[in-house]
Amino acid sequence: MYKELNPPRRILMGPGPSDVHPKVLQAMANPLVGHLDPAFLEIMNETMDLLRHVYQTENKVTLAMSGTGSAGMETLFVNLVEPGDRVIIGVNGLFGQRMVDVASRCGAEVIQVEASWGDIIEPEKIEDALKKHNNVKLVAVVHSETSTGVRQPLEELSEIVHKYDALFVCDMVTSLGGIPTKIDEYKIDAAYSGTQKCLSAPPGLAPVTLSPRAVDVLAKRKNKVQSWYLDLSMIQNYWNEERFYHHTAPISMVYSLREALRLIVNEGLEQVFKRHALYGGALQAGLEAMGLELLVSEKHRLHQLTAVQIPANVSDLEVRKRLLEKYGLEIGGGLGVLKGKIWRIGLMGYNARHENVVFALAALEDVLREQGYHFISGAALEAANRYIRDHE
Amino acid sequence: MYKELNPPRRILMGPGPSDVHPKVLQAMANPLVGHLDPAFLEIMNETMDLLRHVYQTENKVTLAMSGTGSAGMETLFVNLVEPGDRVIIGVNGLFGQRMVDVASRCGAEVIQVEASWGDIIEPEKIEDALKKHNNVKLVAVVHSETSTGVRQPLEELSEIVHKYDALFVCDMVTSLGGIPTKIDEYKIDAAYSGTQKCLSAPPGLAPVTLSPRAVDVLAKRKNKVQSWYLDLSMIQNYWNEERFYHHTAPISMVYSLREALRLIVNEGLEQVFKRHALYGGALQAGLEAMGLELLVSEKHRLHQLTAVQIPANVSDLEVRKRLLEKYGLEIGGGLGVLKGKIWRIGLMGYNARHENVVFALAALEDVLREQGYHFISGAALEAANRYIRDHE
Repeated sequence: MYKELNPPRRILMGPGPSDVHPKVLQAMANPLVGHLDPAFLEIMNETMDLLRHVYQTENKVTLAMSGTGSAGMETLFVNLVEPGDRVIIGVNGLFGQRMVDVASRCGAEVIQVEASWGDIIEPEKIEDALKKHNNVKLVAVVHSETSTGVRQPLEELSEIVHKYDALFVCDMVTSLGGIPTKIDEYKIDAAYSGTQKCLSAPPGLAPVTLSPRAVDVLAKRKNKVQSWYLDLSMIQNYWNEERFYHHTAPISMVYSLREALRLIVNEGLEQVFKRHALYGGALQAGLEAMGLELLVSEKHRLHQLTAVQIPANVSDLEVRKRLLEKYGLEIGGGLGVLKGKIWRIGLMGYNARHENVVFALAALEDVLREQGYHFISGAALEAANRYIRDHE
Repeated sequence: MYKELNPPRRILMGPGPSDVHPKVLQAMANPLVGHLDPAFLEIMNETMDLLRHVYQTENKVTLAMSGTGSAGMETLFVNLVEPGDRVIIGVNGLFGQRMVDVASRCGAEVIQVEASWGDIIEPEKIEDALKKHNNVKLVAVVHSETSTGVRQPLEELSEIVHKYDALFVCDMVTSLGGIPTKIDEYKIDAAYSGTQKCLSAPPGLAPVTLSPRAVDVLAKRKNKVQSWYLDLSMIQNYWNEERFYHHTAPISMVYSLREALRLIVNEGLEQVFKRHALYGGALQAGLEAMGLELLVSEKHRLHQLTAVQIPANVSDLEVRKRLLEKYGLEIGGGLGVLKGKIWRIGLMGYNARHENVVFALAALEDVLREQGYHFISGAALEAANRYIRDHE
């Protein structure tokens, strides 16, 4: 006989999931309505409206796929790519690599443009690839590389991609609701995201947005989309006025997304971005004052997710284990080539607050000291607070 | 500015989603833990254990895919089928049709064995197809056809399929937690389900189970699975001892599934099946006493989902609209060839209770009377209660 669920209390400051806003948790406890109930169709409309606002777009096809962020990635590739299509993918971290894998499974001919994990993809390198290979259907990059904490500049890249008449596709899993995505302003043709990062909702949905140009590509496909579950031509008919039944929408997850987006829109999108920048910057100032080195140069650093180099002679696993056991604090380890070399500390959505900065710095300081790593006590907190005073 | 979410109160007696058990709603309101947190890994283990119990199997690979029931369908086809493989699919309703579509998108050569919507697939017809076509890799049927309310007998079919050395795959979306699935006893090689039917959890996860024989087929694939998101060879490495990160699990949905399964196991699986049979039978007795005709013959009728023929001169849409507006009661309409011809009334999971039988019969009686359909008042309730007395 199992007992009732009683998960331990954690503070989730890894690369995601982040802590869910209490009001979002509450929204999920609402009893269900049917997936074709007029009341639910209204909730879907509101969710799309709110999503457009947070994605900064007027794209009609802006909706939530019924899977996690990676399902969003797969959605864009299975729908926009047909077997034999040529695509260019920027690879400077795990999620670029994943795009290569996903696109290859769709039968794409993939050209990889690589950069070190921790660097951006230089726009010139993409342009070189576009010059070398003709008929490229789409170019994809990761806006916020969750495995490194790099923020990829998009504006110049978008111009280049469109000069060669390709579609510009962005992974915005860790961007949405944390930093500007500017879908329309930057002319991004398609983007996908997740709910468990800066939106502070639980994982389980993948918000995607497609420009009219991308939708047109979809409409002109020669072959059926290889995934029935992720076939946008059918799914958009459920989300739009047609309301054709496709699959049963994950009602409670849509409740959570609507509530999470509502909180962001009510706070004000610009204010939300400022909050992420302020407390993310403060955390970074604190970490540096502790003598720790950050992986990414200041210019290309995300605020919502910081990669910290693990000091020599300090055990990666031990520190994370102690933080979890002693403080209930989760931070992330490194992935791929950065495994054992970095920690990833997130300050996303609801967690981008002063108290989390203070708490994380204090807990990390304590646990690092246990590991024999020494530094001036209190310097981190002082630097963080100074950063806040100077930037508020 | 949008207001806080405030969905109307409904009673969900359509083909699913069904009403979620209050304790399951509560479980979802728990704060998150990370998807690699030791506490979450324990919750995953418990969920797999509980799932095995409810699926009546000892299959190691018994886990929940991060999508709705249809993602479960797609999971089995993308993993078990390779381009050019020959498969036989029984089609006697919408979900058989959907399997054909999904399997075709995987590059399968599909042989359809058809029956009228409302009938079962006769085992001899499957055997005829197996005699006619050699090298059939798998045979798939729908155990509980949600579009018709038909219960497909599996035992004899399984023997036939194995005689021809094919895999036997079953859609158990509306079966799991409502009627016996007997995966091991009937030697079913793979099955998928959803959470929003007899489990009384919200939609969003697809519990699947694969026999060692099916897992072996997976291991011997020549090509990569075309879906990265649904690739079981990677996903089982996250759910088993390896704990390899694949995608971020939908934590809150796993909470809800664990709690829903726990409630079923604590009540006792046999008792749960008896409860579905008792109240489903009572509802059907009541509907017939009202003079309504049921679509499916008694022998092959599901208890958890009943298809009722819409009487002549009664408006399908109007009746469902009035039930929703006047009583907050949702029942389902027909799909495909049965659109406008039947209603589908579910008594699933938490909803399989006496009060729901009484309420649904009374509400339907009232709304049908508004539509000019006349019958002896009270006869339905009397018949339902008599059924309960006789079968309890």
